[in-house]
Amino acid sequence: MINSFHPPLRTLMGPGPSDVSPRVLAAMARPTIGHLDPAFIGMMDEIKQLLQFALRTNNELTMPVSAPGSAGMEACFVNLVEPGDKVIVCQNGVFGGRMKENVERFGGIALMVEDEWGTAVSLDKVRALMEQHDDIKLLAFVHAETSTGVRSDAEALCRLARDYGCLTIVDAVTSLGGIELEVDLWGIDAIYSGTQKCLSAPPGISPVSFSERALEKVRQRESRVPSWFLDKKLVMGYWGGGQKRAYHHTAPVNALYGLHESLVMLQEEGIKQAWERHQYHHQALRAGLEAMGLHFTVDAPVRLPQLNSVAVPTGVDEARVRSLLLERYGLEIGAGLGVLAGKVWRIGLMGSSCTRRHVMVCIDALENTLLELGADIHAGVAAQAASAAYAE
Amino acid sequence: MINSFHPPLRTLMGPGPSDVSPRVLAAMARPTIGHLDPAFIGMMDEIKQLLQFALRTNNELTMPVSAPGSAGMEACFVNLVEPGDKVIVCQNGVFGGRMKENVERFGGIALMVEDEWGTAVSLDKVRALMEQHDDIKLLAFVHAETSTGVRSDAEALCRLARDYGCLTIVDAVTSLGGIELEVDLWGIDAIYSGTQKCLSAPPGISPVSFSERALEKVRQRESRVPSWFLDKKLVMGYWGGGQKRAYHHTAPVNALYGLHESLVMLQEEGIKQAWERHQYHHQALRAGLEAMGLHFTVDAPVRLPQLNSVAVPTGVDEARVRSLLLERYGLEIGAGLGVLAGKVWRIGLMGSSCTRRHVMVCIDALENTLLELGADIHAGVAAQAASAAYAE
Repeated sequence: MINSFHPPLRTLMGPGPSDVSPRVLAAMARPTIGHLDPAFIGMMDEIKQLLQFALRTNNELTMPVSAPGSAGMEACFVNLVEPGDKVIVCQNGVFGGRMKENVERFGGIALMVEDEWGTAVSLDKVRALMEQHDDIKLLAFVHAETSTGVRSDAEALCRLARDYGCLTIVDAVTSLGGIELEVDLWGIDAIYSGTQKCLSAPPGISPVSFSERALEKVRQRESRVPSWFLDKKLVMGYWGGGQKRAYHHTAPVNALYGLHESLVMLQEEGIKQAWERHQYHHQALRAGLEAMGLHFTVDAPVRLPQLNSVAVPTGVDEARVRSLLLERYGLEIGAGLGVLAGKVWRIGLMGSSCTRRHVMVCIDALENTLLELGADIHAGVAAQAASAAYAE
Repeated sequence: MINSFHPPLRTLMGPGPSDVSPRVLAAMARPTIGHLDPAFIGMMDEIKQLLQFALRTNNELTMPVSAPGSAGMEACFVNLVEPGDKVIVCQNGVFGGRMKENVERFGGIALMVEDEWGTAVSLDKVRALMEQHDDIKLLAFVHAETSTGVRSDAEALCRLARDYGCLTIVDAVTSLGGIELEVDLWGIDAIYSGTQKCLSAPPGISPVSFSERALEKVRQRESRVPSWFLDKKLVMGYWGGGQKRAYHHTAPVNALYGLHESLVMLQEEGIKQAWERHQYHHQALRAGLEAMGLHFTVDAPVRLPQLNSVAVPTGVDEARVRSLLLERYGLEIGAGLGVLAGKVWRIGLMGSSCTRRHVMVCIDALENTLLELGADIHAGVAAQAASAAYAE
C-alpha cells in the first residue's frame, strides 16, 4: 500500500519553482467549484484583469493557459506560425532551442540567431538577418533566459521587429514580476510566462497575452491550427470577456485559485515595487557571494537579479554541493543546463523566494558547505558583506 | 483593488468537477518542492504505480499529462495519428466530435461511425466499416460519454479492433474509477482520463497510458509529432521509470500532490469496491427520481451509474431549475449539451460526490424546486423510495 505523501520542507532557490506563500497554498486548498459556476467565472474575469496589470497590457486576449509554461510557448507558436512562415529565433540558451523545435514542428522555417550562452541576444545579428530576408513573419526570443541568467533587450528587439513589419513572440517565463516588462509600451505581440517563477504560484499554468495584431494573424490563418487544446479561436470563446462563455475544456479550478491569490499579492505590493525588490535582494546576494570569492558568469549590465549564475570554483564537485545543501539545509539551488552543466550554479531569488531571509540562508549554507568540501573561498566574511549591502 | 477569492460552498453533482475530499484539498496545500527533488521523483513513481492500479495495466508508459483531459486526448491523437492515417471515430455525443477534430488537425482521415446521442456505439457499424477498408490504423471511441450518460462496450470494441489489426484510443475521462475498466484485459492501446470525475481530484491533470503496441507505433513514426509539449518520446524521458530523468517541463507539483492523495484513497477503498459504490448509489438515486415521476433518457443496460441523464419535465424552465438549485441549495447539476441542450439534466454521482448524502440532498432539492415551479411530479415520495432502495 502507498501512503499519503508529505513533502519535506524546502527553501527553493533554484530556477523555479520558487517558494509558494502560505496565502497561495491556502487558496489552492479551498473547495473546488464548477468551472461554469457564476462565482468561478467572476474569478476568471479578475484573473484576466490581474494578468493585464502584471503584464502591463490592455490586450483583450490575456489569459492563463491551463498547462505549464512550455504549453504557453506552444500556444503562441502553434497559433502564429503557419507552414512556410519564416521565423527568426534567437538562441542564447536552452529555451531558444525549444522555440526552434516549436517553429519546425508547426511547419515554419526557423532562421537562427545564435549568441553565446551567458550573453544577450545581439540586435545587430537580428537586424542583419531582417535585412537579408524581406519575408520574415515573426521574431521570437527569450526575455530572461532561465538557463543562463541573462536579460535581453526586449524593448529594442520589439522596436526592430516593428520596423521590419514582423510580429514578436516573447518568452517571459522568468521575467514576469521580476524585472521590468511592458507588453503594450514595448509593443510585444505574443507573450507567455509561467506561474512558478516570480509570481510564486505553484507550477502548472502559463499566462499568455496576444496583441490585436497577433489576433489578426490568427484570424487570417489559411491552415487550421494543429492543436485543438491550444487553438486560440476556440479558447477565446471560453476566456473572452463579456459574452456567454462556450465550454472548451475544464479549467484547473484550484490551480487558478492559487494563481489568483498570487496576483492579488502582487497587486498589493505593486508591480514596480516587485521589480525593485528583486534588484534589492540581488545586490545583497551578490555582495555576499563575491565576498566569499565566487564569480558571477554573466556581465553586470545583462544580469538577471532573479536568477544568479555563479561559477563553480575549480575542483569542487558541484553536484555534491547541491546534494549537501538539499540534505542538510533543505536548500535547493539549480544546476547548469546544456553547455553550462557542471560549470555553474543557478541561484534563484524569485517572488516569495526573494527575501532577506533567503539571501542570508543561502550565503550561510553555501559558505559552510564549500568550506567543508575544502573549496578555496574566503571564510567568515560573506554574511557581513550581504548585511552591509542592505545597510547601504 | 481585487481581493482574495473565497468560493461559495457547493455540492457538485454535475458532469464534473465532482466534490473534492478535504484530504485531497489538504494535499494540494502542502509546500511546493522542486520538480527534480528526489522526494518529488519518488512521489512521481508512486503516482505511476497508483495509476497502473486504477487503470488495471502494467503499461510502462502510464503517467499524468500536465493538463486537462482534452490535452490527454490530444496527447493520444497527436502521437498516434500520422498524416494520411485512416481512423474510425465513433460519435454518439460531444466527445466523439472532438476526437474527429483531433484526427483531422493532425492530418488523419476520420471515418465516422455515428450513433444517436443517448445510445451506445454500434459494434455492427464499426465492423462494417472495418470490412470496407483494409487500411484502418486506429479505432477511437468514448467509453463513458459525459454528454449523454451512455456506456459503450469497450471490451467488445477493443476485441473487434484487434481482430482487424487496429490500435484503439479510448476516452475514459468519466469511466475511470466509476465503472469497470480493464486496460490490459481488454487490450486497450491508448487511454486518457481526467482527474475531476470519479477520481475526485481537482481538474487539470489527465492520466494517460500507452500499450507496448501503441509505443511501437510512436517509435515507427515517419513524421515528427506536431507538438513539443505532448511528444511522448520526450515526455518518456521525464516520466519513464528507472533511468536518469531528463528535464522536459516543470510538473504541476501541487496538482500532483492532489492526484496522488486521491489515488491513495482509491487504493484504500479498492477499485472494484469503487465501481460497486457507484452502482449502489445510482440505484437509490434512480429509485428516488423515478418515484418523483422523472424519466431516465438512457436505456438501463447502457446507463452510466456515475452520470444520470434525466429528461426535463414538459413545460419546465430547466435553466431556472439549475439556477435555483445553485442559489438556494448550493447544488450544481449539469445542463444538456449539443442536441440535448434544454432537454436533459445530467446528474453526476462521481467519486467523492457518490455518497448517500449526495443522493438525498439532490432528491430533496430537486423535488422542492420542481414543485415550486409548478412541475407535474409526485410529491413527498422520492426520499422514501431512495431510502427503501438502500434498504434492499
